[in-house]
Amino acid sequence: MPDWGKQGFLTQADTEVMAKFLQNEPPAPPELSLQQMKDSWQLITPVEERPVAPETTRDWQNYFIVTLRDAGQVAIIDGDTYEVVNTVDSGYAVHITRMSASGRYAYVIGRDGRLALIDLWMEKPEVVARVQICYDARSVEVSKYEGPEGDFRDKYAITGCYWPPHFAILDGQTLEPMKVVSSRSYTYDTGEFHPEPRVASILASHFKPEWIVNIKETGQVWIVNYTDPQNPSIKMIEAALFLHDGGWDSTKRYFMVAANQSNKIAVVDALEGDLEALVDTPAVPHPGRGANWIDPEFGPVWSSPHLGDPAVVSVATDPVNHPENAWKSVRVTPLPGSGSLFIKTHPNSKWIWVDMTLNSDPVLARTICVIAKDDPAEVHKCWEVSTYGRAVHMEYNKQGTEVWISVWGDAANPGETGEIVIYNDATLEEKTRIKDLITPTGKFNVYNTVNDIY
Amino acid sequence: MPDWGKQGFLTQADTEVMAKFLQNEPPAPPELSLQQMKDSWQLITPVEERPVAPETTRDWQNYFIVTLRDAGQVAIIDGDTYEVVNTVDSGYAVHITRMSASGRYAYVIGRDGRLALIDLWMEKPEVVARVQICYDARSVEVSKYEGPEGDFRDKYAITGCYWPPHFAILDGQTLEPMKVVSSRSYTYDTGEFHPEPRVASILASHFKPEWIVNIKETGQVWIVNYTDPQNPSIKMIEAALFLHDGGWDSTKRYFMVAANQSNKIAVVDALEGDLEALVDTPAVPHPGRGANWIDPEFGPVWSSPHLGDPAVVSVATDPVNHPENAWKSVRVTPLPGSGSLFIKTHPNSKWIWVDMTLNSDPVLARTICVIAKDDPAEVHKCWEVSTYGRAVHMEYNKQGTEVWISVWGDAANPGETGEIVIYNDATLEEKTRIKDLITPTGKFNVYNTVNDIY
Repeated sequence: MPDWGKQGFLTQADTEVMAKFLQNEPPAPPELSLQQMKDSWQLITPVEERPVAPETTRDWQNYFIVTLRDAGQVAIIDGDTYEVVNTVDSGYAVHITRMSASGRYAYVIGRDGRLALIDLWMEKPEVVARVQICYDARSVEVSKYEGPEGDFRDKYAITGCYWPPHFAILDGQTLEPMKVVSSRSYTYDTGEFHPEPRVASILASHFKPEWIVNIKETGQVWIVNYTDPQNPSIKMIEAALFLHDGGWDSTKRYFMVAANQSNKIAVVDALEGDLEALVDTPAVPHPGRGANWIDPEFGPVWSSPHLGDPAVVSVATDPVNHPENAWKSVRVTPLPGSGSLFIKTHPNSKWIWVDMTLNSDPVLARTICVIAKDDPAEVHKCWEVSTYGRAVHMEYNKQGTEVWISVWGDAANPGETGEIVIYNDATLEEKTRIKDLITPTGKFNVYNTVNDIY
Repeated sequence: MPDWGKQGFLTQADTEVMAKFLQNEPPAPPELSLQQMKDSWQLITPVEERPVAPETTRDWQNYFIVTLRDAGQVAIIDGDTYEVVNTVDSGYAVHITRMSASGRYAYVIGRDGRLALIDLWMEKPEVVARVQICYDARSVEVSKYEGPEGDFRDKYAITGCYWPPHFAILDGQTLEPMKVVSSRSYTYDTGEFHPEPRVASILASHFKPEWIVNIKETGQVWIVNYTDPQNPSIKMIEAALFLHDGGWDSTKRYFMVAANQSNKIAVVDALEGDLEALVDTPAVPHPGRGANWIDPEFGPVWSSPHLGDPAVVSVATDPVNHPENAWKSVRVTPLPGSGSLFIKTHPNSKWIWVDMTLNSDPVLARTICVIAKDDPAEVHKCWEVSTYGRAVHMEYNKQGTEVWISVWGDAANPGETGEIVIYNDATLEEKTRIKDLITPTGKFNVYNTVNDIY
């Protein structure tokens, strides 16, 4: 507990009241029914009133949707001109943005469970629908499958919640809530009932009409078939406790998901629908979606940094041509510090970028490093991105020529609220800055997000 | 509340204490983990110590496993000789018994969540394994599929619980608990979270490696694929609230399940894995597994009696040759009273038998009726089975020539504890009685249960 007594925030009497209050059994937070979601639903611009073709001459596929964390907003920034095309209200402290399979729509999920749908074809992109899906959310994804079983592109969205613990399926064009499924069940290992297993990352398969839904406290990966969303089919795979974030390997067959407090990467085979492997890692892997590249010694790998260890770990992902290495942690590249949240690369790049955002040293927290793919034993270069705040989350532009990095500042401190620093990926030289943004954190390039390029 | 004050059981002071006690928020009943199930598991006779062929010269396929409700036992009775071959301890107030696909094993589930496995190949059938699966149970079923996806006969069992609300998958030969899945989720209609949706009836598909699991308070039918029991696949079908009991139509493609407090029969297509129809019925249908027969006017039908209405309702089940009638309630046959629990017929029989066990008139409660298949507008004949107790649950012998009916007596009243009355099905004449059984209720002929003949 913070020393609020010493600091003078609380008197002795205040402290005693607080101590007594804390000894009460906390009440269960409220549930949220499908009907309540529907009641909160706002269809601001019906589908028939939206553009039938892009109204803008900008390359909307090169837009970046940038979380302005403390403002409860996102900025839509033109990746070619660096102009802020619009800033719109979203939920609070947006966790992620995902695009519809066509890229036209951006789905923005706040930690407060508020979901906003933005139409990027508008001259000035605006929120066309909103809905409150829960009270504490982290994930949103879309249906991406097109094939013999149907064309589901731009059809459905799915949200994952921490509280109430559930996922919900929504109409992808309007956000109308269609279905809610509880994640409450038993832990995969001891079969203990867990009353609030949080829904962490969700990924859409490119090959099947399925979402991969990660349930944190039960350690289960649920493969949800969405061909009949009112009557979904779910395969419940035993994996590892504390599943959190992850991404595809380069073939998009294997989903690499960090089991963060278990210090493992779980490898899920999305084609077979089963657990392929569990890989031990250092403390608390946090890959975001990870980074795919070709290691000169070990072949195709997928890499993750760690919150609890100063290391990028690369896991070999090619069981066909490098079976002896597959699903092993083949390389550890040391970093100057731990506290990493994200890693990023691009197929055209010779670099892997990594942050150390939550390092307790303020200098390291604003430092990023790059690793050279052709010499990955050590970091190639590290530097401070700014003189204040934390450096967080790298994203490539559509062309794969620039890397955008957020400086997460202090919303209450004018001049240091935050900015985006843009680097030339080839030279690692700074190109420009987009200044005076309110606490920018995650940012999602339309093209790269649609195509799962990382 | 009973008039315990007037009757002198409670003083005024007692009543006040009781009233105060009842105003307390009841504590949540305890959970039960997979580990606790495993801890309760007793493998009394390992597989390798069991017979390799039937040890008995009796026709064990014509055994009846008879619930002795208040004794917490089942009797194994020879259907040819009427001898009680053995009486074994089971759970309390056994709800149902199911046989393994070969018929060799009987799975007996008590309302107290205790499951017993009986090996019918033994000279004297005994319990070979026990396990506590929950605190309040109603259902057990086995894996019956054999085909291109594998041979699952005698391989797995599944139990359904009221509390904790879950289903569990067990090794079919040993009862070792393998997997537990919570039924807690959202109601199918308003999407309201339900903290304790009870698992009601479970049926094994004959055509697919699947169980059909009925979740009462959420109104969902879950089709559970058991080919990979540690990682089960579940299709969650929206049906109707208060799903309870039911059985196959004559083709075993359609599962007819009563949504009892909704006054509906839900028809689930086990081949397509979806809801085929909802049929309105009178108050509180309670079919057991129902009765399949050919109505002279409407073709193949499946019939259910009702707890809340004096009527047998027949639903047409042949969409191929009688599409105009399919899934309609085509006939209502009036009964002298309501309170029915069960109905039964046999393909070789000209009769449909029905009880009125829970009728408040003690004469009707011990009366059964038969309906003639060739003249089903009215009941053919009704009669009292005994001079005491309640007549409940009819079961045919293997040959389909006899009907066995339980007289559910009073365990504390010697001479009237209960008996089984056996009728010649062709003549409706009484053949014999098996006397002095302790509150017999349900009874399950091995052959008819394995083959779903009803």
